[in-house]
Amino acid sequence: MDRWIAVDWGTSSFRAYLIKDDVLSDTIKTNDGMKFVKDNNFENTFINLIEKWLIKDKKIDVLASGMLGARQGWIEAPYEKAPCKLNNINYISPVLFDKRISLKIFSGISQNDPPDVMRGEETQIVGFLTNNNFKGSICLPGTHSKWTKINKNILEKFRTFMTGELFEIISKNSVLSHSMISDNLDKAEILNSANKIMNKPELFANALFQLRADDLINSKGAIVYRSRLSGYLLAMELIGSLEFWKNNDIVLIGNVDLIELYENVLINKVSSIQKFNSEDMVLKGLQHFKDKLN
Amino acid sequence: MDRWIAVDWGTSSFRAYLIKDDVLSDTIKTNDGMKFVKDNNFENTFINLIEKWLIKDKKIDVLASGMLGARQGWIEAPYEKAPCKLNNINYISPVLFDKRISLKIFSGISQNDPPDVMRGEETQIVGFLTNNNFKGSICLPGTHSKWTKINKNILEKFRTFMTGELFEIISKNSVLSHSMISDNLDKAEILNSANKIMNKPELFANALFQLRADDLINSKGAIVYRSRLSGYLLAMELIGSLEFWKNNDIVLIGNVDLIELYENVLINKVSSIQKFNSEDMVLKGLQHFKDKLN
Repeated sequence: MDRWIAVDWGTSSFRAYLIKDDVLSDTIKTNDGMKFVKDNNFENTFINLIEKWLIKDKKIDVLASGMLGARQGWIEAPYEKAPCKLNNINYISPVLFDKRISLKIFSGISQNDPPDVMRGEETQIVGFLTNNNFKGSICLPGTHSKWTKINKNILEKFRTFMTGELFEIISKNSVLSHSMISDNLDKAEILNSANKIMNKPELFANALFQLRADDLINSKGAIVYRSRLSGYLLAMELIGSLEFWKNNDIVLIGNVDLIELYENVLINKVSSIQKFNSEDMVLKGLQHFKDKLN
Repeated sequence: MDRWIAVDWGTSSFRAYLIKDDVLSDTIKTNDGMKFVKDNNFENTFINLIEKWLIKDKKIDVLASGMLGARQGWIEAPYEKAPCKLNNINYISPVLFDKRISLKIFSGISQNDPPDVMRGEETQIVGFLTNNNFKGSICLPGTHSKWTKINKNILEKFRTFMTGELFEIISKNSVLSHSMISDNLDKAEILNSANKIMNKPELFANALFQLRADDLINSKGAIVYRSRLSGYLLAMELIGSLEFWKNNDIVLIGNVDLIELYENVLINKVSSIQKFNSEDMVLKGLQHFKDKLN
């Protein structure tokens, strides 16, 4: 029986998958993101998390990608340089104390001009490309949204936008937080707000403070202001990624809520949209890496 | 002898001035900003801060402006509505337990379209206008920068930009914080960065993440990245306030470092620049209010 472990260890979450004979057999999902690992105690933390899958005196392959290969992660896996082929991602195999696992950390991708980096998203793209001969743009919305231009198996270029992180810190840590106390969003309000700023990006900076002032004067409710903030930030991302999506075929890979939010704004502006779940794509990507090793 | 107290109580700082016969006699500056006042205990906090200036059985006038008049402040002083005359700002006189002081809180200014608010800046503008017959734009850089259009004694319109607050939260709470560990800024780098984004605002959102990626790839040092962030955010403010400063006479009121930063970027783009210290202007503004009461 062929057993191996796929790992996606990010800054704020941990996901591991036990695969037996090409079938997903067990899953571990926790909030043990790398930022919570103390004193660089990565190996022990990792072993503790997946201990139940380990068998005495038997070595198991572990294939991993994501921020664990960053400079401030477990062990730095040097970047591939874009433009680059996606069916040939390098990895490093660090020597571990625990002899029950054979670890391979796959590289992220960097780009010199304009400077950019990714770690983990390349694996999702590889996952998507496994059964596709795609030419177009792949967008991976999230904390740091990526827009990538793909020509069959080549990542030609990419750009990153801090859209998710900006939404998080502005809605939580700024004066706007008083006007954002809701978990909900309104699709029409997001679309209108995004279109407004896409047409006139010069309105962006003042529009942010207007959210607070409008609340003080007109009290339209937190859902409205939260949706507008989301729309404004998305607009700035879309203005900056125009060359990737305009009249193009695009693929969205992310969590369900986020890709619906992007679809809502992009649907009438692009040639076609396909949507995929990021967890599925990570697993398919690591499976592809595993198949190439054999 | 005529004794009175001028107060500028903001969100994060407290300043009070004792004036005797039109001369500044004593100053209290602390970090007891309104956000640190517990259980709405404003009166006691205030009395404790200025107790040493109070005389038994003698009432003293206290004239105050700033965020203490906000809805979440001491007592809400309703807004004046822009456009409005600046020599006729209203105030409220709340009844206090302590009979040694007679408090007047002066109103802020709101604007319906586009929605905007200010509290405290109007007092600085009044201070500047005391000896000026100015027509042009006054900018008050800060946590929430204000651009105002002034025609003699009338505030015609204004816009607020969260430039200072965005710089604070992005440089401290985002992934960029790793690339910002410095207290210094480079004037030339700020100017280049501001001009770059003013020419192409569509680059703004990606340029933010580039700060981190450039650091990972090229390690140019924290001063460079901190200066670029400052320039990018200032550019977005200036794009949004173009009608206020382009080919116009402008006045900058703020702290020394901040108004120099704005002057550095604006100097070749405007007709003229005058610079004033915000503390001086607050005091002159409150003095003007006092003179009108007598």
